[in-house]
Amino acid sequence: MADTQQRNDLAAVSDLAAQLRVDSIRATSAAQSGHATSSLSAADVIAVLAARHLRYDWAAPDDPDNDHLIFSKGHASPLLYALFKAEGVISDEELTDTYRQVGSRLQGHPTPVLPWVEVATGSLGQGLPIGAGIAWVMRRLERRASHVWVLCGDGEFAEGSVWEAVAKAGELGLGNLTVIVDINRLGQSGSTALEWDVDAYARRVRGFDVDAVVVDGHDLGEIDAALTAARDSERATVVLARTIKGKGVPQVEDTNGWHGKPLPDDVAARAIDALGGVRDAVIDGLPPLRSSAEQPAGAADAPEFPHYAVGDEVATRTAFGEAVAALAALEDIAVVDGDVGNSTHAGLFASAAPDRFFEVGIAEQQLISTAVALDVRGYRAFAATFAAFFSRAYDFIRMAVISQCDLRLCGSHAGVEIGEDGPSQMALEDIAAMRALHGSTVLCPSDAVSAAALTREMVTVQGISYLRTTRGAYPVLYDEGTSFPIGGSKTVRAGADDQVTLAGTGVTVHTCLAAADELAKQGIGARVLDLYSIKPVDRAGVEAALHETDGRIVIVEDHRIEGGLGSAVLEALAGSQACADATLLAVHGMPGSATSLEQMSMAGIAVGDIVAAARGELTRAGRL
Amino acid sequence: MADTQQRNDLAAVSDLAAQLRVDSIRATSAAQSGHATSSLSAADVIAVLAARHLRYDWAAPDDPDNDHLIFSKGHASPLLYALFKAEGVISDEELTDTYRQVGSRLQGHPTPVLPWVEVATGSLGQGLPIGAGIAWVMRRLERRASHVWVLCGDGEFAEGSVWEAVAKAGELGLGNLTVIVDINRLGQSGSTALEWDVDAYARRVRGFDVDAVVVDGHDLGEIDAALTAARDSERATVVLARTIKGKGVPQVEDTNGWHGKPLPDDVAARAIDALGGVRDAVIDGLPPLRSSAEQPAGAADAPEFPHYAVGDEVATRTAFGEAVAALAALEDIAVVDGDVGNSTHAGLFASAAPDRFFEVGIAEQQLISTAVALDVRGYRAFAATFAAFFSRAYDFIRMAVISQCDLRLCGSHAGVEIGEDGPSQMALEDIAAMRALHGSTVLCPSDAVSAAALTREMVTVQGISYLRTTRGAYPVLYDEGTSFPIGGSKTVRAGADDQVTLAGTGVTVHTCLAAADELAKQGIGARVLDLYSIKPVDRAGVEAALHETDGRIVIVEDHRIEGGLGSAVLEALAGSQACADATLLAVHGMPGSATSLEQMSMAGIAVGDIVAAARGELTRAGRL
Repeated sequence: MADTQQRNDLAAVSDLAAQLRVDSIRATSAAQSGHATSSLSAADVIAVLAARHLRYDWAAPDDPDNDHLIFSKGHASPLLYALFKAEGVISDEELTDTYRQVGSRLQGHPTPVLPWVEVATGSLGQGLPIGAGIAWVMRRLERRASHVWVLCGDGEFAEGSVWEAVAKAGELGLGNLTVIVDINRLGQSGSTALEWDVDAYARRVRGFDVDAVVVDGHDLGEIDAALTAARDSERATVVLARTIKGKGVPQVEDTNGWHGKPLPDDVAARAIDALGGVRDAVIDGLPPLRSSAEQPAGAADAPEFPHYAVGDEVATRTAFGEAVAALAALEDIAVVDGDVGNSTHAGLFASAAPDRFFEVGIAEQQLISTAVALDVRGYRAFAATFAAFFSRAYDFIRMAVISQCDLRLCGSHAGVEIGEDGPSQMALEDIAAMRALHGSTVLCPSDAVSAAALTREMVTVQGISYLRTTRGAYPVLYDEGTSFPIGGSKTVRAGADDQVTLAGTGVTVHTCLAAADELAKQGIGARVLDLYSIKPVDRAGVEAALHETDGRIVIVEDHRIEGGLGSAVLEALAGSQACADATLLAVHGMPGSATSLEQMSMAGIAVGDIVAAARGELTRAGRL
Repeated sequence: MADTQQRNDLAAVSDLAAQLRVDSIRATSAAQSGHATSSLSAADVIAVLAARHLRYDWAAPDDPDNDHLIFSKGHASPLLYALFKAEGVISDEELTDTYRQVGSRLQGHPTPVLPWVEVATGSLGQGLPIGAGIAWVMRRLERRASHVWVLCGDGEFAEGSVWEAVAKAGELGLGNLTVIVDINRLGQSGSTALEWDVDAYARRVRGFDVDAVVVDGHDLGEIDAALTAARDSERATVVLARTIKGKGVPQVEDTNGWHGKPLPDDVAARAIDALGGVRDAVIDGLPPLRSSAEQPAGAADAPEFPHYAVGDEVATRTAFGEAVAALAALEDIAVVDGDVGNSTHAGLFASAAPDRFFEVGIAEQQLISTAVALDVRGYRAFAATFAAFFSRAYDFIRMAVISQCDLRLCGSHAGVEIGEDGPSQMALEDIAAMRALHGSTVLCPSDAVSAAALTREMVTVQGISYLRTTRGAYPVLYDEGTSFPIGGSKTVRAGADDQVTLAGTGVTVHTCLAAADELAKQGIGARVLDLYSIKPVDRAGVEAALHETDGRIVIVEDHRIEGGLGSAVLEALAGSQACADATLLAVHGMPGSATSLEQMSMAGIAVGDIVAAARGELTRAGRL
């Protein structure tokens, strides 16, 4: 790495650090908001990194050989944007005129609206898990020489997600990952638990078989040596940089009460002066290390999807697993599992494409982070666990939306239908939570044919798509080859004299069908709608059914009433005159252990409940 | 601890372990479901613990001097229930006839429907954070001699939440906490990452300044010595027990594919025989260690609540903080913060009652676990962070519902209203997520008077209550002394000729008021409803307003449309004829940085949007 030494000497780096500090102050002062002091503490480590270690073609942010740089402490955005100016990719005007302003790319926390930002940060403790995921993907699938650099705050090292990532980094020996921790001792509301006890940090990190190097975070030589060693190490490295919050502005250095606040104008002006005034130097950094690795290709063989015959009893989770295993034929598909691959059946992918199957263990935050990392590296990722356990990573999924990721999530064992295992294993809030995500797609197939088809559809869906599968096996309802467009629905039973629509999703399509049978015996025609696409919901399909059944509908779901399928339908119909009477049947009470049928009965979503609800609507209408 | 030695010799413990194994097998075989092999691996450690270390009055589970025993690996419920039989508190019939059956207390995973179970487990990695919380609360507030024992699986040690707890245990020197890890090498779908590398576990644990002791998990003497040392240690201890999954049943020992499966009948029968057949011994265990600590009292001084005058501009987060600080006068109120107490203003409690203010740092899973722990120990806990960051602990909140906890959550900085910080800091899914929780209460005050009143109401609310507060300051709308019952609403503007209802919550009440002003200028009367109680929502209040405004309503919220306030209203009105036309205004698109007003305008929830929506409804009705 001789060119490192020749590129920028430490005097030049010192000038760069001063420029980054001046620009961090100028940006936050101009915006009158933002995190100046959290930027100042990390300016020296970032200056050394950018000038002498980071290998990145700033003109080509999509170059697959670029190093990755993730600001896990996203609130240090002034420093990141100051760096972008120093790299010559944004102007001084953009930095000082637009930071935190309406319409600006330079938001309060970095997001991928900027081409040099790969993932959104700002919810702490997420950049490192994603960085570890990227290092894992590059090491396993691409064998590139490029490196992942993550800047963390010390406060976020209290997040468990950080330790999920450090554990992975140690277990996998991710030598292509370097984490720099800006240990400035002060959190938002006060001191961190460990303050400047850098040895305590080092003990923790080393316990996970990850290298820890302690440096004075304002000593450029020490930082430089640490980063050189980190890049060359066979193991992951955490550089513990002891820093001073507000470094360079004596009035605020190491002082509580300045988190997230711009400096007073006079303090800012004096500080800029003392730091040598405004500079506009541009870094002459290092180019990417070239490798012969190839980007993931698209199709290889044509996938051979599973076959199911009408009437076969197959769990939708099985169909998902078989479909995703078929998708292994596409070389850019990857699957992430959280030690439940034998239950979600995502594990079937492992035999088909072992290299592209990532087992994270029981660590759902790292599960999502690894899927995000795969997306960053150009793979199309599925991540699967019990539907209930995505709630463990809800913040990560929320942030993946802001990161503009395409993620395909499959949650099995949803609802009371799972039976004996009891409420801790039942997702009863997942539809509400997943629906609320911006731009998400929520799917819930009722049979194996639709489950396999929707799994296939998910490959090309943008944003977060979520497939909810059953534990139990139910009869195949659809002929092979039936198409299931996202946003559609299926009328699975209809007659000329239907008086009410029964709408279900997943398992409740089957209970609706049984209820329609029962109602038919009572001389009441009922139409059954399979709302396999919960978001977007098929408004036109529902309205058409309502038109045929005098505006009467019973909506049944194995989920809480709040924010679920019924809610989705009502939101879609808001303001419409199509609906004369609607009954929402959803899970009541707190389940315990019981068989699937007993559970659904106690929850109030069984066949008898649907029949009673339909009859209730007809009674209210004077039809009974 | 002389009585420990005299109580049960190791031969008796060995018999007990055999009984626990036999009963674990019998229960799962009778149920034909459940986790037999995961119980068998931990039978020896539990036998030693129960017979010689656990100090617990089984006839008085509420005795405050009892030790705590938490099965963090909740799937080992057969072992826990076998222990309950051995403690004489459930019968052999209950164990073998009802395990996992409908209506049984003996669910697939333990929940507090059983008097000896304090928190529900089954979502892994939660029992230990709660146990650490209990140890912290007992150490800080009660100074009891009792001890917290947590049984963990090895798989769950991949969860970040475990390391949040281990970190706290180390930092706080929780000598009253002992964790036993059942290292049986096998997860659900395959081997764990560390398998039987017990030294790797020990390095990790010791890195956090917690004692780690490695034992053969089937050597009763080694276990006994470790537990004796652990109870006496000044530091928290993790006993790393190397065990064999399925121990005692040679056909399944250390073999993949048996997780969560009962044994074949013939294997079970032979194993029961080999283990000495069915026993019904009852343990003569140790009584609680008595201490002079007192249970938290109820009222002390009468709280002096803050005062606000109509028109004052006060952020609802400030009013929450001031109200919760006033509640410090009640000696059983405690507050947990995640390093944002100066933003949520929960930090005001710290000056009023420093002992009852728990600062967990940036570790939201431990934040909720500590609040659960306070509930377990008889305190009434508030936990506060940015509304967006409760999503980090959604699984913990979900499980707290199953644990029957009363938790008071306050989320500040909700919605686009926060302004410049950008989307990572904005909760836009919180109403949907919190509403979907069984039995939850969701509140969103629009002004300081209602915020303080609702904070006070939360003290006596059962289950999970959630208060959503604004970042910005808005005018006080209500007179002091106004009551804000949960489930109510307020009509903040009404006229005789109102043609449309504008319903808001929190900040959108203010935009609705401004829209009503604008509509009045246009000759259109608009009624404004403050739906401060989102769950339960005031169905009667909404229907009354609809009755007065010809069934027209515009519902406005600073949240995504899915599952939010509009959804809550529509769910409540389902099947009713009260609503002729409804428009839901909610946040559209992905926000960036901007001022609060700019954000609301871009999101489509500003005054102009409300006016346009109201006019649209009137146009559709032929009234314009």
